[in-house]
Amino acid sequence: MSLALRTALAYHESWKAGDLDRAMTYIAGDIVCDAPAGRLTGAGAYRDFLTPYLRMLKSVTLLAAFGDDEKALIMYDSATTLVASAPGAECVTVRDGTIVYSRFLFDRAPFIAARAAQ
Amino acid sequence: MSLALRTALAYHESWKAGDLDRAMTYIAGDIVCDAPAGRLTGAGAYRDFLTPYLRMLKSVTLLAAFGDDEKALIMYDSATTLVASAPGAECVTVRDGTIVYSRFLFDRAPFIAARAAQ
Repeated sequence: MSLALRTALAYHESWKAGDLDRAMTYIAGDIVCDAPAGRLTGAGAYRDFLTPYLRMLKSVTLLAAFGDDEKALIMYDSATTLVASAPGAECVTVRDGTIVYSRFLFDRAPFIAARAAQ
Repeated sequence: MSLALRTALAYHESWKAGDLDRAMTYIAGDIVCDAPAGRLTGAGAYRDFLTPYLRMLKSVTLLAAFGDDEKALIMYDSATTLVASAPGAECVTVRDGTIVYSRFLFDRAPFIAARAAQ
């Protein structure tokens, strides 16, 4: 398995298991993440981005995961208390065992709709 | 390059070039596509799904593409007349040179907001 994919999967398995502290050990302190709502800079901002999602997470199914020496691309589906099916895709750049850049993709529409209905 | 990735990239390059007819030659007649708004069944429904997006497409940048013998996963960013940055990810299953299943992910929120503002 490629180095980047090994890191991406270790990170994925950690947050899937609800272990945010362990997941963050795979995130570089100066990570840059381009998420649907805009750019996040730094591990603190990234942790704040993941936290509310993990609070409502029920289960995760990995759909595909590939990588080479520096990049990995994964797609998964997830079930949350707010949205029944919330797939995500992450394209990460890995350096020295941590994710230094992430392009993070999910559909915000069902979350916006569910929050408006609450 | 893996067989599935070759097909996924040929399809991607075709629609990127605006050639929907050529792109559709890589789509199975009975394709099933799980898109953000729900399941699409059949090449006709898939073509109707792509058509309005391609009409507003200005440019596409491939971010990552990987695959094995039967699955490929790609992520790209795109610029459209409606939404400046509209990334997408497609996880496709390929059989006999055509895409028989696709999990298609993009963020609908900026499209909904832009249409509401029009």
